[in-house]
Amino acid sequence: MRFNETLKNIKIYEAGKPIELVVREFGIEPERIVKLASNENPYGTPPKAKEAVVKAAGRMHLYPDDSMYELKRALSQRFGIEPKELIIGAGSDQVLEFCARAVLNPKSKVLMSRITFAMYEIYAAQQGAKVIKSSCYRHDLDEFYKLYQTHRPDIIHICTPNNPTGDALDRDYLYDFLAKVEEPLVIVDGAYMEYAAFKEPKKAIDPKDLIQKFGNVLYLGTFSKAYGLGGMRVGYGIAQEPIIEQLYKLRPPFNVTTLSLVAAGAALEDEEFVRQSIEKNFAQMDRYVQYALKRGLEFIESYTNFITYILPQQISSKEVAGKLLRRGVIVRDLTGYGLNALRITIGTPEQNDRLFSELDEVLDGY
Amino acid sequence: MRFNETLKNIKIYEAGKPIELVVREFGIEPERIVKLASNENPYGTPPKAKEAVVKAAGRMHLYPDDSMYELKRALSQRFGIEPKELIIGAGSDQVLEFCARAVLNPKSKVLMSRITFAMYEIYAAQQGAKVIKSSCYRHDLDEFYKLYQTHRPDIIHICTPNNPTGDALDRDYLYDFLAKVEEPLVIVDGAYMEYAAFKEPKKAIDPKDLIQKFGNVLYLGTFSKAYGLGGMRVGYGIAQEPIIEQLYKLRPPFNVTTLSLVAAGAALEDEEFVRQSIEKNFAQMDRYVQYALKRGLEFIESYTNFITYILPQQISSKEVAGKLLRRGVIVRDLTGYGLNALRITIGTPEQNDRLFSELDEVLDGY
Repeated sequence: MRFNETLKNIKIYEAGKPIELVVREFGIEPERIVKLASNENPYGTPPKAKEAVVKAAGRMHLYPDDSMYELKRALSQRFGIEPKELIIGAGSDQVLEFCARAVLNPKSKVLMSRITFAMYEIYAAQQGAKVIKSSCYRHDLDEFYKLYQTHRPDIIHICTPNNPTGDALDRDYLYDFLAKVEEPLVIVDGAYMEYAAFKEPKKAIDPKDLIQKFGNVLYLGTFSKAYGLGGMRVGYGIAQEPIIEQLYKLRPPFNVTTLSLVAAGAALEDEEFVRQSIEKNFAQMDRYVQYALKRGLEFIESYTNFITYILPQQISSKEVAGKLLRRGVIVRDLTGYGLNALRITIGTPEQNDRLFSELDEVLDGY
Repeated sequence: MRFNETLKNIKIYEAGKPIELVVREFGIEPERIVKLASNENPYGTPPKAKEAVVKAAGRMHLYPDDSMYELKRALSQRFGIEPKELIIGAGSDQVLEFCARAVLNPKSKVLMSRITFAMYEIYAAQQGAKVIKSSCYRHDLDEFYKLYQTHRPDIIHICTPNNPTGDALDRDYLYDFLAKVEEPLVIVDGAYMEYAAFKEPKKAIDPKDLIQKFGNVLYLGTFSKAYGLGGMRVGYGIAQEPIIEQLYKLRPPFNVTTLSLVAAGAALEDEEFVRQSIEKNFAQMDRYVQYALKRGLEFIESYTNFITYILPQQISSKEVAGKLLRRGVIVRDLTGYGLNALRITIGTPEQNDRLFSELDEVLDGY
C-alpha cells in the first residue's frame, strides 16, 4: 500500500483541551474546571437554538436537507447576497479545506501571516503546497504585497481579526491591498468579525461589499464564536458565483448535520443573545486590560472574544499554562506559534475572577 | 485565479430528495409525504439518543472532545479492537474521503462494482484517479480479480451489502478474494452490515477478524442506518494502525459535532431499538417480496433496509419515480446508475401500505 508523498509533511492540529480530558488527566471535578482556551461563547448556547434543537431531537434519523435551503436563505437575506454566492461548511474550516483542495497542488504557494490560524498551513500541507509567511506577526500588508510580488502565491490568507493574536485590520487598509492583488484567491477569514465590528466600525468588513468589489476574494464566517455554536460545526464562505461553484464540487453530501442546520437557523434569529454576548465580552475585556496593566503584562489590543498576554522572557508561557491547567483553568499557550504568550478567552465574570486569582498565584511564584 | 484540473471531471452527488423539497416543489402537506428514498431508519431516532441530546442541547457552544475519547472507547469495546485501530468520521463518507485523499492521485486507479455507492467514484474523481468498473452489477470477485491483475488499482471498493442493489457477499468468498490482493487498500463498506448479519450469518463480516487477517483492509461502519442517526453524520473506519495513522493526518479537527458524539454514544447503548428496527425491517421486507411476486416485478434479494425492484423495459423507472413523487411518495430511481429500477427503503407498516397502494395505481396506468 502506498500513501501519497504529501502526507509525510503533515502536522496534526492541536485542539484546545476539552474539559473531559482535564477531568481524566488531573482528576479535577468538572464543575471546578474553567475552560478559556477555545474562544467558545462563555454565555452558552443561544436559548433559541437550544429550544429548536430540543424540538427537533426526534428527527436525527433523517438526513439533512442537502440543499440547506432554509439556512442558505436566512444567511443570504442577512448579508444581502444571493444563495449562489454562499457555501455552508462543517465549520468555516471545511470551506478553507475546499479552497485548499480546489486551488492548491504541489506546485502552489500560499501566503499568510507568521502567526495566524493554524489550519491554513495544515490544509496547504495536505495539498503539498509551499507556505510563505510574513515576518511580522501582525498582518503587515506592505510586507504581504512584497511577498506577493516575489512569490506569486495561489492563495493569500487574511485573518481579521486575527487568531490567535486578536488584532484586526482597518477596512480601508485591507481594501487598498486587495485592489493590488487580482490574481490569487484571497481568503478573508472573519470568524471573529462580529466582535470587531461592534468595537470599531472601521474594522468591519461587509461580505456583500467585499465580494462586489473583489471577484477573487472569499469571505469566511462562522457560528462558532458570537453565535455560540462551536460544537455544531457550521460556517460559511461568501464569494462571487464562479468561486462558490468550484468549491461545491468538493462539498461532500450532508456535510452539515440535521441538528446543526436547525441550531444555526435559530441562532441567527437570536439577535438579543448575540448582541448581549458581544457587549458583555467587551465589558469583561476591560478587566483583562486592567489586569495586564496592573501586573505589567504586555498584551495585544483585541477585537475578539479573547486576549493575548505576552509574557516576559523569563516566564515561560508553556509553564504558566501547565500550572493553570493543574489548577483547573485551561488557557492556550502560544509557544507552538512562536510567541511566549497566553491566549485567554474572555469568560463570564465568574470565570474571569477565577482566572485572575489563579494567574495571580501562579505569577507570584516567579 | 486557477482551479485544479481535476475539478473539471467532478460530478455532484445527487442526494435523495428531502421532505422539505417535495413540500416546496409540489405543495404537498408534509404529513402526506412518505420518504422511502434515503434508507433512513423508519422507526426514527433511538429513544436513548433523543434523550441524551435533549439533555446536552445546552452544550452546543462547546467544541466537541476532539479525541472522541468516549465514543472511541465504546466502539472499541463493541468490536474488540484497540482505539488506535479506529477513526471516526462525519459519516463513513468522510472516512472514504480520507482514504481517497491519502492514497489517490492522478496516476492512481480505483476498482469498484459497476453499480455501487456513488461516492466511491466521486472521491476518486476529486483526486483525478481513474475508475475501473466491473461489468457485472453484483460483486463478481472473479471478475474483480482479473481486473485487479490487469489494472493494479490502488484502492478496491467492496460494498457488502451493496448499495443500491442490496445483495451481499458470503464471508468466505470475500476472504478468498482478499487473500489474493495484498497490494492495494481494500475498503469493505459495511454500512448495512447489521441487517445482513441478522438475516444470514454467513454474510456477516466481523471487523476485528477482518483486520487481523488482512493488513491492507479497512472496514467501514455507520450510525446512519440501523442506528437511526442518518442526520447526525457519524461513521467509522476500522483497520490496522498504520492505515488509521495516515488517515488521521487528513482528519479536520472537530469533524464530528458535540451532539453527534452524544447521540452516537447513546445509540450504541440502545440495543433494544436497533434489534427491533432490524427485526421489523425483515418482517416488512417479506411484504415487498410478496408484492413483487404478485405484480411480476423482478427484484434483487436484499440484505439491507431497502429493496431494489427492476422494472420491465417498457416501464421507465424514472417516470414511475416521478409519478410517485407527485403523489408524495419519494423513492430512488436508479436510472442514473444504469438500472431501470427503483430502490425503495423498507418503511414502517403504514408507510409500506401507502407505497403499495400508490405504486399499484401508478403501475396499473401502464
